[in-house]
Amino acid sequence: MRSEFETELQNLHVRFSEMGMMVNEAIKKAVMALINHDPELAQQVIHNDQRINNREMDLEKKSFEMIALQQPVSSDLRMIVTVLKASSDLERMGDHAVSIAHSVLQLQGKPTIEAVEKLIQQVYEKVEAMFGQAINAYLQEDAKAATKIAQRDLEIDQLIKQIERLCVEKMKTDSKMVEVGTIYVSVANYLERMGDYVINLCEWVVYLKRGKLAELNVKKTKPNV
Amino acid sequence: MRSEFETELQNLHVRFSEMGMMVNEAIKKAVMALINHDPELAQQVIHNDQRINNREMDLEKKSFEMIALQQPVSSDLRMIVTVLKASSDLERMGDHAVSIAHSVLQLQGKPTIEAVEKLIQQVYEKVEAMFGQAINAYLQEDAKAATKIAQRDLEIDQLIKQIERLCVEKMKTDSKMVEVGTIYVSVANYLERMGDYVINLCEWVVYLKRGKLAELNVKKTKPNV
Repeated sequence: MRSEFETELQNLHVRFSEMGMMVNEAIKKAVMALINHDPELAQQVIHNDQRINNREMDLEKKSFEMIALQQPVSSDLRMIVTVLKASSDLERMGDHAVSIAHSVLQLQGKPTIEAVEKLIQQVYEKVEAMFGQAINAYLQEDAKAATKIAQRDLEIDQLIKQIERLCVEKMKTDSKMVEVGTIYVSVANYLERMGDYVINLCEWVVYLKRGKLAELNVKKTKPNV
Repeated sequence: MRSEFETELQNLHVRFSEMGMMVNEAIKKAVMALINHDPELAQQVIHNDQRINNREMDLEKKSFEMIALQQPVSSDLRMIVTVLKASSDLERMGDHAVSIAHSVLQLQGKPTIEAVEKLIQQVYEKVEAMFGQAINAYLQEDAKAATKIAQRDLEIDQLIKQIERLCVEKMKTDSKMVEVGTIYVSVANYLERMGDYVINLCEWVVYLKRGKLAELNVKKTKPNV
């Protein structure tokens, strides 16, 4: 039979993964709102962010209580600390989804650059795939998988550079595109940051499994990449 | 006489504040590198970021050990959890200083917009003031001061909007300004995010003192501001 503590730990695990799914949903909706020029969907993302923030607070509170009352050690404590730290990463990914949603509202009534929107969708697909794999690696405590996922971030950065180049080109040749170009570049930057947060998550999976803090962000270990 | 635990807690406190000062220095250097067109200083910021990342890992490790070995409760545990969580915010502020440093390198050999650089300096001065006050509020566990600081973030956002408008205007009238305008807008966004992280820090000061998680970010409580 499971102890009360084990049940609580399992609940924490589940509630953290649920937060991951909420954030995943927010990112998806924000990017869909951009691609489909859907301000209502963007408003929904902004409105729902409170739920994500509440969940982070809830996880912090629960983690604190579990540490204070049960005084866990070694791998149990490590799991609680992981939830404490990694929930900040999830919350910030949610914030970036909100920023993209605000960009959608700013784009309303302005001309669009279809080629850029297609590239943004491609970046999103890569971010989403990485994020899904990171959550899976977390659930299965698979440090090896987590290390592999982090390496895929460079593909995202290549696409981001492509978006920036294309936007600059369009803005240079058509001054009517300056505002939208600037907004698209911001959106690309939000997605790039999301990739970085997914890597943070992967680092936490490694920590969870091996008890060691690792730096998996290739851009940080080789700053000139 | 102080117990060993109290000494360790005091050390953690000090090492966290030191991390704050390291980040403060990085931001200052990054913005100075931008204003003075000094790529060498920018390289220094990029190079030194590893020290900030190492300090975060070091604080995590120490916090974990203190929780595991000493099993603190109530306000002592709260302080350790605060360091655990808030060190992520500091680390990310350091990352944004690095991003600004990369922008400085990108700007090399390109035309500059002096009026924008002046506004960026103004934003920086506000961010720096807020950050200094937040670190002080942390050291003095002054929740009231922390709540006040957070309200100043709106001034930063006003300046950011001004920078964005000015850049868009310049880019529209002179296509040679498109690349630099895009870079300046990114820098403005990094500084805006730093303001948000300072607010997070303020929220942790409130938590430290009152044991309650607060939402001090006006943009989040009133998303349409």
